[in-house]
Amino acid sequence: MAAEFDLIETYLAPLAAGHSGAFGLKNDAAIFPGGRDKSVVVTTDTLVQGVHFLPEDPPDLVGRKLLRVSLSDIAAMGGKPFGYLLSVALPPEQGETWFAGLARGLAEDQSTFHVGLLGGDTVSTSGPPVLSVTAFGRVPEDRVLRRNGARAGDDLYVSGSIGDGALGLLVLQDRLAEVPEAAGRDLAERYRLPQPRLELGQALAEGGFARTAIDVSDGLVADLGHLARGAGLAAELWAAEVPVSPAALEVLAKAPEHLETVLTGGDDYELLFSARESQRESLVELAQQLDMPISRIGRFSKGEGVSVLSHDGAPLQLSRSGWVHFQNDPKNSK
Amino acid sequence: MAAEFDLIETYLAPLAAGHSGAFGLKNDAAIFPGGRDKSVVVTTDTLVQGVHFLPEDPPDLVGRKLLRVSLSDIAAMGGKPFGYLLSVALPPEQGETWFAGLARGLAEDQSTFHVGLLGGDTVSTSGPPVLSVTAFGRVPEDRVLRRNGARAGDDLYVSGSIGDGALGLLVLQDRLAEVPEAAGRDLAERYRLPQPRLELGQALAEGGFARTAIDVSDGLVADLGHLARGAGLAAELWAAEVPVSPAALEVLAKAPEHLETVLTGGDDYELLFSARESQRESLVELAQQLDMPISRIGRFSKGEGVSVLSHDGAPLQLSRSGWVHFQNDPKNSK
Repeated sequence: MAAEFDLIETYLAPLAAGHSGAFGLKNDAAIFPGGRDKSVVVTTDTLVQGVHFLPEDPPDLVGRKLLRVSLSDIAAMGGKPFGYLLSVALPPEQGETWFAGLARGLAEDQSTFHVGLLGGDTVSTSGPPVLSVTAFGRVPEDRVLRRNGARAGDDLYVSGSIGDGALGLLVLQDRLAEVPEAAGRDLAERYRLPQPRLELGQALAEGGFARTAIDVSDGLVADLGHLARGAGLAAELWAAEVPVSPAALEVLAKAPEHLETVLTGGDDYELLFSARESQRESLVELAQQLDMPISRIGRFSKGEGVSVLSHDGAPLQLSRSGWVHFQNDPKNSK
Repeated sequence: MAAEFDLIETYLAPLAAGHSGAFGLKNDAAIFPGGRDKSVVVTTDTLVQGVHFLPEDPPDLVGRKLLRVSLSDIAAMGGKPFGYLLSVALPPEQGETWFAGLARGLAEDQSTFHVGLLGGDTVSTSGPPVLSVTAFGRVPEDRVLRRNGARAGDDLYVSGSIGDGALGLLVLQDRLAEVPEAAGRDLAERYRLPQPRLELGQALAEGGFARTAIDVSDGLVADLGHLARGAGLAAELWAAEVPVSPAALEVLAKAPEHLETVLTGGDDYELLFSARESQRESLVELAQQLDMPISRIGRFSKGEGVSVLSHDGAPLQLSRSGWVHFQNDPKNSK
């Protein structure tokens, strides 16, 4: 592995080109304009090899997922991302090819999402690689999407489709029997490369469409729990209305018990949000404009707790952690 | 070790109290106001156990040094810090007492430096603890101190005293023979707990006193090299004018060869900066106002490279990396 200085110069400095506040990564700090009437949105995510990704995972995909997970947090607040910091702790035996792959993946997604590398830190460790991204965005001060804004009577919506990420992980772990090859590939791809819903988040914030939002990372039921608790409300989720992809449908057709994986598995990075009933038409139009499914899947009401209802309105019994945790843990039930 | 959720709730959420943009650490992202006509200064530093600190180091001091190293980078740009993110990768066997100590140290320095915890990430690792702080500050847009602002004829100044950090590390490693006990304690303390020069940095930026600045972390000679290269100039450093503490003087009296440790050792976190000759009186006054030594230790001129001169003007021969690196490495000599 090359020395820190060479790694930065060779692989990272090009990622900072054109971003004057990054000072070519020759500075210990970076600057960016504050921006009048704007709030800065900031989020950080850390991935550890062996915990969040595997040594054999393609490094470019690791880099892209790392960045996208943070961008998804920016999207959930309605922010427009502009830059990020990268901190890397690497063991001396880590191959330079791996680092080059990581940088290649970051470069690709930088251009997809119009963000630049502003700075970071590169150090050595005796343990597995630890990667942190801190991402920055801007949002008009009075338009930030928060987790506590839902009101009783609000509709509940989710973007895209739910469950692919969790099913994709099962595919990659060889834990999903008899899934057709093409469907398995689609699901694995969604797990490895989530799609941050930046355009949607910005449109929801700027148009004043949503009252509250979160990105679905812990699982649909658990993240709905976050919104319900944040607002001090009860929420119901209509399982039959939850959008699933064709690939997930193929899995569910053969193994209906995986409905629970879909509802609680997480790693979806779709936006879950609430809106007034009067916004229904606007949201249909927005979905058309953005060419992205937006599904109405439940509602908020006075009370507390999350109810998951089947198509006939009967409560569904779920046993997986996202749900059980929320039901039984006194810390989470307030 | 308690679960991530409990660690955050018990030890970290109190550090975010009173900072509304941190959302009680219940959000995946934080917000802060952009600030009209202000730039945001951001910097990140990562410490790895076994590399940057030792398992037996008091965890509160580890936390405080982690934060202070980042605050020193903010100081070098003239910024006023207001918050930080903390990312922690911990092995399952790490004691909760250790984490509590880390949080205690952070709490103490938060109140010293008026900053708040805005967010972060807590994950597990199979390797040693890896800690990252990303610190934020603000500085008027047109007053940011940069590394490339020196002009030929500028005076060179440094704050406080130089060499204590590097000598303190030798004391802690038992590599400094015959140092009196009190002096050894003072030096070790300076290594363990650097003092970010925030007031000075802000005064230099706001008063327009300095043309360029850097904090001394790599070593006085190496960091002067950064300023000289940044400006495309030569610099001379007058070794006899470099301020040393009484404790360092005691070491140098017995072991004059440690002058090289002082000049190249690093970990000083003092500010090294340039100013016009016409600012000499103002800087004497500023030193009095801040009750802090500011020493004139050299100057910039046309040309390239750093010359270290002894009291009679003869060049000093230094062999340690900071210096040799700069002289011999073609990448660094442009």
